[in-house]
Amino acid sequence: MEIFERLKAAVPDDWNAYVGHPFVRGMGDGTLPEPAFRHYLVQDYLFLIQFARAYALAGYKARSLADLKAASAGVSAIVDTEMDLHVRLSERWGLSAADLESAVEARATVAYTRLVLEAGMSGDLLDLYTALAPCMIGYAEIGTALAALPGGLSPDNPYREWIAEYSGEGFQEAAQAARDQLDRLAADRLTEARWPALVDLFRQATRLEADFWEMGLTLAE
Amino acid sequence: MEIFERLKAAVPDDWNAYVGHPFVRGMGDGTLPEPAFRHYLVQDYLFLIQFARAYALAGYKARSLADLKAASAGVSAIVDTEMDLHVRLSERWGLSAADLESAVEARATVAYTRLVLEAGMSGDLLDLYTALAPCMIGYAEIGTALAALPGGLSPDNPYREWIAEYSGEGFQEAAQAARDQLDRLAADRLTEARWPALVDLFRQATRLEADFWEMGLTLAE
Amino acid sequence: MEIFERLKAAVPDDWNAYVGHPFVRGMGDGTLPEPAFRHYLVQDYLFLIQFARAYALAGYKARSLADLKAASAGVSAIVDTEMDLHVRLSERWGLSAADLESAVEARATVAYTRLVLEAGMSGDLLDLYTALAPCMIGYAEIGTALAALPGGLSPDNPYREWIAEYSGEGFQEAAQAARDQLDRLAADRLTEARWPALVDLFRQATRLEADFWEMGLTLAE
Amino acid sequence: MEIFERLKAAVPDDWNAYVGHPFVRGMGDGTLPEPAFRHYLVQDYLFLIQFARAYALAGYKARSLADLKAASAGVSAIVDTEMDLHVRLSERWGLSAADLESAVEARATVAYTRLVLEAGMSGDLLDLYTALAPCMIGYAEIGTALAALPGGLSPDNPYREWIAEYSGEGFQEAAQAARDQLDRLAADRLTEARWPALVDLFRQATRLEADFWEMGLTLAE
Repeated sequence: MEIFERLKAAVPDDWNAYVGHPFVRGMGDGTLPEPAFRHYLVQDYLFLIQFARAYALAGYKARSLADLKAASAGVSAIVDTEMDLHVRLSERWGLSAADLESAVEARATVAYTRLVLEAGMSGDLLDLYTALAPCMIGYAEIGTALAALPGGLSPDNPYREWIAEYSGEGFQEAAQAARDQLDRLAADRLTEARWPALVDLFRQATRLEADFWEMGLTLAE
Repeated sequence: MEIFERLKAAVPDDWNAYVGHPFVRGMGDGTLPEPAFRHYLVQDYLFLIQFARAYALAGYKARSLADLKAASAGVSAIVDTEMDLHVRLSERWGLSAADLESAVEARATVAYTRLVLEAGMSGDLLDLYTALAPCMIGYAEIGTALAALPGGLSPDNPYREWIAEYSGEGFQEAAQAARDQLDRLAADRLTEARWPALVDLFRQATRLEADFWEMGLTLAE
Repeated sequence: MEIFERLKAAVPDDWNAYVGHPFVRGMGDGTLPEPAFRHYLVQDYLFLIQFARAYALAGYKARSLADLKAASAGVSAIVDTEMDLHVRLSERWGLSAADLESAVEARATVAYTRLVLEAGMSGDLLDLYTALAPCMIGYAEIGTALAALPGGLSPDNPYREWIAEYSGEGFQEAAQAARDQLDRLAADRLTEARWPALVDLFRQATRLEADFWEMGLTLAE
Repeated sequence: MEIFERLKAAVPDDWNAYVGHPFVRGMGDGTLPEPAFRHYLVQDYLFLIQFARAYALAGYKARSLADLKAASAGVSAIVDTEMDLHVRLSERWGLSAADLESAVEARATVAYTRLVLEAGMSGDLLDLYTALAPCMIGYAEIGTALAALPGGLSPDNPYREWIAEYSGEGFQEAAQAARDQLDRLAADRLTEARWPALVDLFRQATRLEADFWEMGLTLAE
């Protein structure tokens, strides 16, 4: 059984609370209040910077050239591509690049990103990619689920662009690569003695990702 | 002007929200609900473990034998003394060592501790001690303020022991040492170009410390 | 005065011993024994992997998106371009990719790379780029000096390709960018109190780079 | 089979070159030139500072309170006890505290200590303690072997004090604790996939420890 599936199966309630959060459901049926989405977009920009740092950390931690190349591609995908896409999407929602750059990290943004970075630094690549999994692999799962809803991708849904991106081929492939990477790392480094701590880390990361949706919904700072 | 005073002066509202949080006021006049204090005690135990790791990190980051000794004394004070005191105080509040050891970190505990550890790792000792300052120096300020209240240390106040500890000579001296350490580090490493980022870090740490009180008060997990 | 020039001026003997090492002079006039160059090529391959990790570390340590992008470009330049060039150059010297990949790090390779990584991790970006400067900026200086020699780039010189690469526009621009980056970091973070430790680090790095030439010359393992 | 014994058995030649180095044999029969020992004492002082940082790093990396306490005791043993002993031993050899404090790290000191710190930071506690094992456990093995020699501890041997310290009960117990710690970590985290890299790290560390003796013998800087 895939390691990612084992991790999800270990914390089903936390996982479902994350992928089925009201913010997510609101994107799926188009009922999410627009200010919530705007607040999310701003924080997600700040999140991406820390996320890129996490991939840079993976490069530092790499023990093989293959791992190093994978991490380098991850950083580059974020800082050279995703952030530009994010800026353009945000513009269509009325947020300027200056709005994004001058924003202050909300608590929920700090909590999840620093957990990931700290777990990755004090642990190993298996810890780091486990902490990133709710984001990388979870967003792909959410994208697929929302795209399958009746109105998910309909022209009426103001969130169709977000759904299209995360359900799209590019992101789905990246998520599959993250699953494979996790399996390779687990094959090399997972022992049964480590399993409870790994589940605990996955649970923390999943809860803090759910808090990120909640932060969007409540406009929390 | 002392660097700690400059930092506080830069974020007065955040600082006052932290040192004057309802949880703090409730300890001062004895009206804090006891379950809130118990919840705080459990999380503070988990906090202390991460806090000791932060001092260990300061030892790794040390560039002089004096800094290394100071960090080593910091770790030892926590793992060899404070944690035992904490266990005994918790016992008097009906919490066993097993209760503490089996507890799960609340979000607020994760958020503040990982911010400190990550800022200290990616930054330098000045960043690390700045992120620790709301805790080390702030608790001393709170202890002094509460001890000066009419009933702060009265036998009727269920929180007199906590107040006595943090207003006591030992902790006050440790806080003064932390102030001096911060001044020495700032003399060596602070430039005006770094100041805004340092204030930002202090503000984040202060807000997350206030969230720690809020977590106690609301019994949040 | 440029920070890099200040650093060189602080340790002139160490710097001259590095850029004027017999290995370097032997490349310039074509008298370097070929086994020495082959040994160097193998170790330089292993060096590049650690060097890429150092840029990944710079990405993790970055505080701004600009610094993050610069570090990401640095990693990518090594793992996506330089290492391929290195493999092809090595092939022309009779070394297969398998020879490179199966090689064991010599002591001199371990010493310099781990100094850089450790200084960068326990210090800040200014420390990291200072430790990298003898490599990045020093190689450009050596390339320029050797290209200016009468027979440096002549078809008779077996080392003309190496000299052409490091005296070429691409590498010279990268070295200039490294100089500018160092100046920016120093403007933000250098204090007079830090100067002696920074010189010490630069001196250590320069000596260990000279040892790297010596390792090539003596075929040391 | 104990993990430390497995590691030694994997690199017998490197291990024997380290524990049977001419510097070691010269201490055993009292023929080591005194300037070599003085040079060693100075560098060993600088080594101890980095060694204490390595234990501080172990504290940062700790996942349990027991590991954190063990690391804290390790740092404290060095900075509060061993370094004082070292200063007093050095004084009897004509070296003042100022001589020690003003000394510059030799290449061999840099190489071993930075390998350990970097392996421990980018890896996990198993990597860190494996890299420290040639020092902690190897010195105990050397001490025992030299004490068993006919004149090892005789009043005529100028090196009897060194031999007595490392063959003494205190250090032997510390070495046994390090062996046990390594076994516990291996039980939790060692997989067969990790074994070759762990052996490689142990081999590198062992060679760099042998280089440390060589540095003493040749008075290398």
